[in-house]
Formats: sequence, C-alpha cells, structure tokens
Amino acid sequence: MAAVVAATRWWQLLLVLSAAGMGASGAPQPPNILLLLMDDMGWGDLGVYGEPSRETPNLDRMAAEGLLFPNFYSANPLCSPSRAALLTGRLPIRNGFYTTNAHARNAYTPQEIVGGIPDSEQLLPELLKKAGYVSKIVGKWHLGHRPQFHPLKHGFDEWFGSPNCHFGPYDNKARPNIPVYRDWEMVGRYYEEFPINLKTGEANLTQIYLQEALDFIKRQARHHPFFLYWAVDATHAPVYASKPFLGTSQRGRYGDAVREIDDSIGKILELLQDLHVADNTFVFFTSDNGAALISAPEQGGSNGPFLCGKQTTFEGGMREPALAWWPGHVTAGQVSHQLGSIMDLFTTSLALAGLTPPSDRAIDGLNLLPTLLQGRLMDRPIFYYRGDTLMAATLGQHKAHFWTWTNSWENFRQGIDFCPGQNVSGVTTHNLEDHTKLPLIFHLGRDPGERFPLSFASAEYQEALSRITSVVQQHQEALVPAQPQLNVCNWAVMNWAPPGCEKLGKCLTPPESIPKKCLWSH
Amino acid sequence: MAAVVAATRWWQLLLVLSAAGMGASGAPQPPNILLLLMDDMGWGDLGVYGEPSRETPNLDRMAAEGLLFPNFYSANPLCSPSRAALLTGRLPIRNGFYTTNAHARNAYTPQEIVGGIPDSEQLLPELLKKAGYVSKIVGKWHLGHRPQFHPLKHGFDEWFGSPNCHFGPYDNKARPNIPVYRDWEMVGRYYEEFPINLKTGEANLTQIYLQEALDFIKRQARHHPFFLYWAVDATHAPVYASKPFLGTSQRGRYGDAVREIDDSIGKILELLQDLHVADNTFVFFTSDNGAALISAPEQGGSNGPFLCGKQTTFEGGMREPALAWWPGHVTAGQVSHQLGSIMDLFTTSLALAGLTPPSDRAIDGLNLLPTLLQGRLMDRPIFYYRGDTLMAATLGQHKAHFWTWTNSWENFRQGIDFCPGQNVSGVTTHNLEDHTKLPLIFHLGRDPGERFPLSFASAEYQEALSRITSVVQQHQEALVPAQPQLNVCNWAVMNWAPPGCEKLGKCLTPPESIPKKCLWSH
Repeated sequence: MAAVVAATRWWQLLLVLSAAGMGASGAPQPPNILLLLMDDMGWGDLGVYGEPSRETPNLDRMAAEGLLFPNFYSANPLCSPSRAALLTGRLPIRNGFYTTNAHARNAYTPQEIVGGIPDSEQLLPELLKKAGYVSKIVGKWHLGHRPQFHPLKHGFDEWFGSPNCHFGPYDNKARPNIPVYRDWEMVGRYYEEFPINLKTGEANLTQIYLQEALDFIKRQARHHPFFLYWAVDATHAPVYASKPFLGTSQRGRYGDAVREIDDSIGKILELLQDLHVADNTFVFFTSDNGAALISAPEQGGSNGPFLCGKQTTFEGGMREPALAWWPGHVTAGQVSHQLGSIMDLFTTSLALAGLTPPSDRAIDGLNLLPTLLQGRLMDRPIFYYRGDTLMAATLGQHKAHFWTWTNSWENFRQGIDFCPGQNVSGVTTHNLEDHTKLPLIFHLGRDPGERFPLSFASAEYQEALSRITSVVQQHQEALVPAQPQLNVCNWAVMNWAPPGCEKLGKCLTPPESIPKKCLWSH
Repeated sequence: MAAVVAATRWWQLLLVLSAAGMGASGAPQPPNILLLLMDDMGWGDLGVYGEPSRETPNLDRMAAEGLLFPNFYSANPLCSPSRAALLTGRLPIRNGFYTTNAHARNAYTPQEIVGGIPDSEQLLPELLKKAGYVSKIVGKWHLGHRPQFHPLKHGFDEWFGSPNCHFGPYDNKARPNIPVYRDWEMVGRYYEEFPINLKTGEANLTQIYLQEALDFIKRQARHHPFFLYWAVDATHAPVYASKPFLGTSQRGRYGDAVREIDDSIGKILELLQDLHVADNTFVFFTSDNGAALISAPEQGGSNGPFLCGKQTTFEGGMREPALAWWPGHVTAGQVSHQLGSIMDLFTTSLALAGLTPPSDRAIDGLNLLPTLLQGRLMDRPIFYYRGDTLMAATLGQHKAHFWTWTNSWENFRQGIDFCPGQNVSGVTTHNLEDHTKLPLIFHLGRDPGERFPLSFASAEYQEALSRITSVVQQHQEALVPAQPQLNVCNWAVMNWAPPGCEKLGKCLTPPESIPKKCLWSH
C-alpha cells in the first residue's frame, strides 16, 4: 500500500510534535509504548462501545481522552496467531502461526505444540532495542513455550507470566500444570503457587499483573524509554477475578473480570500521570480476538451487534475494541473510521521510536500515526484467514466472504456453538462453503451484523467485487507462506521441566517423544 | 409501588434545586419540558449506545452533558399504544390502546381505525395547563384521527403534523393520502403538498418539524413555561431525509434520516442555550419502540445486542435509547441503571410542573426526578404486553416470558421476519407459545440478548420466579382493562374530508360506512 511508504519518514514530523519528550541528555527521547492486550474481550464489552451495564468507567474515560476506533481488527480469530501478528506486524500465514493439517483450520499453542515463533521473525521488542527501549511482557506470551521460543530470546528484557493459557488444573502426570515465569525461570505453576479457584472464580492474577506493570513503569519512567506489553488473560475462560471484584458486576463473573481489568488500567494511567510521563507514553488498548460466545453467558463476553464470535471470520470473531491514548498528542474525544489492524501496532510503535520496519520482508501493519495525529484516513484491506485459507476480505465498507464456516455439524450437534442465537441462512454455515466464484458481499455500514448479503445482480455488488478482487489478487500473488508452525504436536514437549523447576523441586518427567499431527477441529 | 408515593411531594425539593427558574413575577416558574420522541429508532442507533458508524455527535454530546439510561423501555412494541402510554402515564391496556380481536395481537391507528384516545383519559398537556404551560405537538399524533381525538381537544394548544403514519402515496379513491395539520385544520396531504420521494428518499419534513420547534421555543421561551412534544418520524419506513443529508451516512438512507434528526436536535439544544433557557428546560430523548428490523438494512435501524425488534416483546422490541438533559440540574456524564419507562415521562413532567398525577386512576409512570437529580434507584417492574396479553415482565435483572411469539409461520414464510439473523430455540417462536406455567427467565445483565434461559431447576430461577410472580399477581389483580379502542375499522372514517379540506379544495367523498373487525396479524 502506498500509504505505508508515505508514512515511513513520519519520525521527522513526530519529533516536532513530541518536543516534550526530551531525555536526560536533552536529546529527543521517543515516547514510551504501552500495549494493553485483552484476551477474548469482545467489541461490545466496553461501556463506550455500548455494553448495557456500562461497567468500564476507566476505559470509557480513556476513550474520551483519546481516540476510539470502531473498525479495528485482530489478525486472526484465535489468540496465538493474533499475538504473533501483533509482535511481527505480519499476517500469521507469513510468520508461521498457522496450520495446514486441514482446510481452513484455526490453530494455537497448547503446551503439546512443537512449533513457536521462528528465529527468522523480528519481533517488536527486538527492533525497539535499536532505539534504546527496555521491554517487558506481563501475562500471556503464547508464541511457543519451548526454550528457543522464550520471550527473552525474542527481544523482551523482562517477563512475568505464562507461555500458555491458564487451563487446568492438570494432574502433572498425563499433563503438567502451566508454569508461571519471572524472566528466564519458572516461579510456580497455575493451580499450585498461582491458584485459580474454578468454583468461585477467585484468582489474584490480575492484581499481580497490575503490580508488575506499575513496578516496571516506576522503574523505567525516568531512564530509558520503555515498551510494556500488558497481556492479561482474566477474560479468557476459565474467567477469574480477585476477591474484591468477585460478585460486583451486573454481568456475572465475566463482568467481574472486566471490572478488575478496567480498574487496573485506571491505576496504570493514573500512575503515568502522577509520574508526569503521560504525555510521553503512547497507550493502546485492544483485544486478541472476538468474545468467545461458546463460553457465554457465564464466561464469555459480547461482540455487540456483530455476527458470531471467536473462531469465526465474521465480524464478531475479529472486530475489536481499540483505544489510543496519548495526552497532548492524540486529541481527546476523537473517533476514527480508519480500518485498523492489530498488526498496525507493530509499525506504529516502530514509527514512534523513529524506526522503520524491516525492509527484507512483507509487513502488513500500517503506521497509524497519520490517523492518530492528523486524522488522516488510509485505504487498506483487512484479510480474514483460517489457516492458509483466505476466508474473507474487507475494503472500505464492503466485506467479501470467499468461504463461510462456523464449525462442523458434528461439533455443532455436540453443543459447540460459535454463534449462539444467531443464524443467517447461507452465511453461518456448518459446512465449509466455497463462495470463491461468487463471494457473499456485505455493506458493513448499513449491515454491520452481516445479515443481508448484497444481490449478486446489483451494480454495488459488481463494483465492490471488482475492487476487492483486485486487492486480493495482488495480495495472493505476492504472498510467500511461512513454514507452518502449528502442525506438529508432541506430549513430550509439554511444560514438564521448565527452566528453574529444579530450584522449586517441580521438575516432572516427560513421556516418550511421539510427534504427531495436531488435531484442529475448528 | 411505594416509590411513587414517596416521590409525589418532590416539588418542594425541586423548588430549592431549581431556584434559577424564576418567572418575571419573581415567583418560581416550573421548567419548560421538551420531549424528543423518535419513531422506530432502536437502542443501538446512537453512537453513545455503540452504533459503529457513530454518526450522532449531537445526541452523544447530549448524553455526555446529561444522563443516559441503558435500561429504559417503551410501553409497547408498536407506535400508537406507546405514544398513548407516554401521554397518559398508563399502560395501553388501561388507556384503551389495544385490541382483543385475536390473542396477543399488536394494533395501532391506521386511518381506517374507528377508535382513538378516550375523553376519559387525562393527557399530559391537559394537566400541564393547570400549571400554566403552553403545549405544542410537532409531528406524529397517532392517538386517533377522527375529530373527537384531535390533539387540540386533548390539551395541546398547537399542532403541526399528521394524525397517522406517512405511508403512501394513495390514489385518493380507495384510500386518501394522509393529511398534515396546522392546529385545527389540514394544510395539505403527504405526497401532495408535502412530498416524500419514495425512490430517492427525499423529503423536507424533518426540516419543517425543526423549524416548527425552533419557532415555538422562540415564541414561548420568555413567557409561559412550555411543553413541546417533538414527535418526528423520518426513521419510520418509508425513511426520508432532506437533500443536504441524503447520501451522507455510512449507514445508507436510514442513517441519513438519523443524521438529520441528530443535527436538528443539536440546533434545538443550541437555541435553548442561546436563549439562556437551557437551565430551565428539561429535555428528554427516547423512542416509541425498537428498530423495525423488518425494514432493515435499508429502512430499519439497530437494536444493538438485543433480540429481535419492533412488534416483539423481546428486548429489541421495547428497550429504547433514553437521554435526559437539563444543564445545572441533571449532573453531566451520568449513567443510571434505573429501569425506566416512557410512561415515567408523564409523571416526571407533572412533578416538574409541581403537579401530582390524577388520583382517581392507576398510573404506571414513576416520577424519575429522584433518579435524575439524586441518583436514586427505585424498584419497579416493566410489563411487556401484546393486546391484553401480558407476554413478559422484568424485575431487577430478571425477565420472565409468559408467552413467546415473533410472528406466525404463515407470515414468516412470506418473508416477514422480526428477528432477521436471530434464532433462539424455543424463544423466538413462530407459534404463540404458552409458558405461563413455567416462564422462561433470563438474566439481562449476563445475557442481554435473551439467548440463555435460566435452568428451571436453579435456585436463581426459583427465586426470580417467586419475586416476579408476586409482582405480576398484584398487577393483574388490580388491573381494570379499558374498552379496547383498536378493534373496529371502517373505511368510511379515513381522512377523506379533514377539517379545512374545503379551503384547499381537497375534500374527498367517503365510501359507505361498514364497520368491521380490524385484522391484526402480528
């Protein structure tokens, strides 16, 4: 896209705009970068996005003081690929976070996964080092848990959190409990040193993650610029909250988790202001994929007026809440209809640091600073993948579905429903339907819920199809898929004996190594 | 409800709070009252309620400067009964705006209707006269079009608008075009003197209604307190907008209509401020029923995350956007989870005027001033009727459905769909299903979309059922249904020769009078 090229020398303008950001030496210091990444939180979960209980006063204030994107997308309807895309600025099909084991399958990084983030990928914290940034990840990594994939091997200086989802408890025989790391070594396991009470929903993890964020910010604020990636997971099933928040939401346990996160973000923004670094800290809030309606209503969120949820390439699966906050730079109270992507956070962060993205590879993220600082709108497509299958593409207001699928009839009959209460004939299909010859096209402005496909005979359909086809062809012709990382599973690679386990007496013995194809049913 | 009693002497406190509102004599003057009533606008149609295109900057600002209700309800899923309830403070079953021609049927006032608002009903403008108010209705009356039902016979001092919906054009032979009145006499007809271009969607009506509002406010602001009931209908199919707004919305023609109304409301609020009467004018914005999804996406709005739309007793049919604005009195930026009803506007307006509701009849509206001025929450039920059938009731967060129905299979198979893209098994039924023995109960906080009925065996179900049953029994035991007004139709009563037609040479000859039962299919 031409817009990417046009924005690469943005740093010059930024320097003028960010004159406040001077380091101790008097030389201009790039702003701190704080990415708040939610887990399975949906577009409709914030008051400012229309959640009826309106229990997110801090996030709503963040929106009022910053810029809200109604049209912002994750890179995938599932967590690992979306997170890999955020940190590489590249679609999962380019960075390896996909599977080819079956057609159009979502895949992620459970602890039996063999793959992870390839060394050949350049992650945001690695690149930010060149501009003097100190980087920390708090929470869920999800880019592979084997030693070579450790976040501190990929540019982060600090880590507090875990490599996989907080599923469990396990018996430590067939399957070990997931470890929690501080930097290089594990400091305990979920359901052991870091309890999660599945019955009551009580866990202190969000409070711990909050404290990690506050401590890091306090330590770094007056020295080097920092990059903090705050990847909390309380809104991912099993949903949890700490005691003071449990039972406080009108929305049940899921709402308790949202309230605790909202409260924590309020405290983080408050600290930035107390330390007088708010105007030198770029903060962005978004989520890794749509709300997991399969877990609703007790453990899943809301995708507002959008169709279906996590796992699907309908809007509910990939349209995300997204807020930018940078007092003194991003004008308060804006709404931008720029089509945004989680991958833009990669390119935008580099631009903030005065860096350009790697030129030896395709980068899918745009630099959003022209949008954030000048209100500019840039033309760009959004691609919706499952595995190596391009399911849909949006350009402007039009979205074309080349394939439709929610899940199989077999899964659906077992009660797995990614679109509970929703059923659009010929759209929310339980067969993987091929529309590549004649895509279903929706106008997302008039029909955000993807309920009324345009008539194939209409001039609007023909015009939209022609525009989208051209962009998709260009994309597909230039695409070089990476080696898929999410094809092979092996029980021997699970978190049996993470580094540091010996100090805690928590090393377990792995079973025999038997690599096999991972089974991805969705 | 005890809360109603407790609030009747609210006026004393209000006097203290509203010390700014002094008339020319120095005696306290009650505030002006401005009710902005939308037609078929849905909960999800405002930016501040999560509409993704966010094209309502003036209403969003009104919310930011006032109080937003996420849990506010119309009195019926159809327009005439809801409007009759607003002006009488009473459920349609009490004021006669219902039918008994068939079980659980919605009914309204097309021009062949014989009935209308009974003289025995006391309407808000009639009562406000006692406190010196001058009242005007701009737009759609819909409480009967025969001479005895004329708004100027029921307390309004001025009228510009029409008695029925702007359907048409008609041939003036089988059916006359709907008249537009100024005060006592018609001044033309839709599609004739007041054109609506069905092809382009162009009509100047919202601009005319805006001008009527501005003129009235300018005339009244410095004299008597005024009651202005601004009942515009551009968002009711056939949807229309004036030329400067046509084609400007990302949402298509429906959005054009919303944008023009939003712009008009901005101008009205601006005038109140320019005239320095904003702090002495109570403004309330809401809608008569949920968005008409049957007309979506071109001519229908959005009910956000809620189930179904107009015509149904699911949340999408009756939960409404609602904003209160009264600078200096209603604190800016509030959200109240008070369960509110359109009927509360009757009682609240009386309280503002220092009046109490009639004591010789049941009044369903609460005085919301304790909520608006002091943030108090009052316990009260919401009743959802079709005809004389109590379909559902909400108390606190729990909603019980005693009957479920969207529309008949016959209608549905003809393409009439009140829940497009939505299908909740056993809930969005096409048979009129009797659940009176074992109601379906939903928790609207956890499950605003009414997708997950509580388990009949749960303690939560039993507790909620017991609370709701008690309130419903109390309601039904005390209920005295009025004579139903919407049972009889007659082509002879249509708008053949409205008063003033002779001056315009627009009198038509009525056919023979043949009263018959109205057919209500939904």
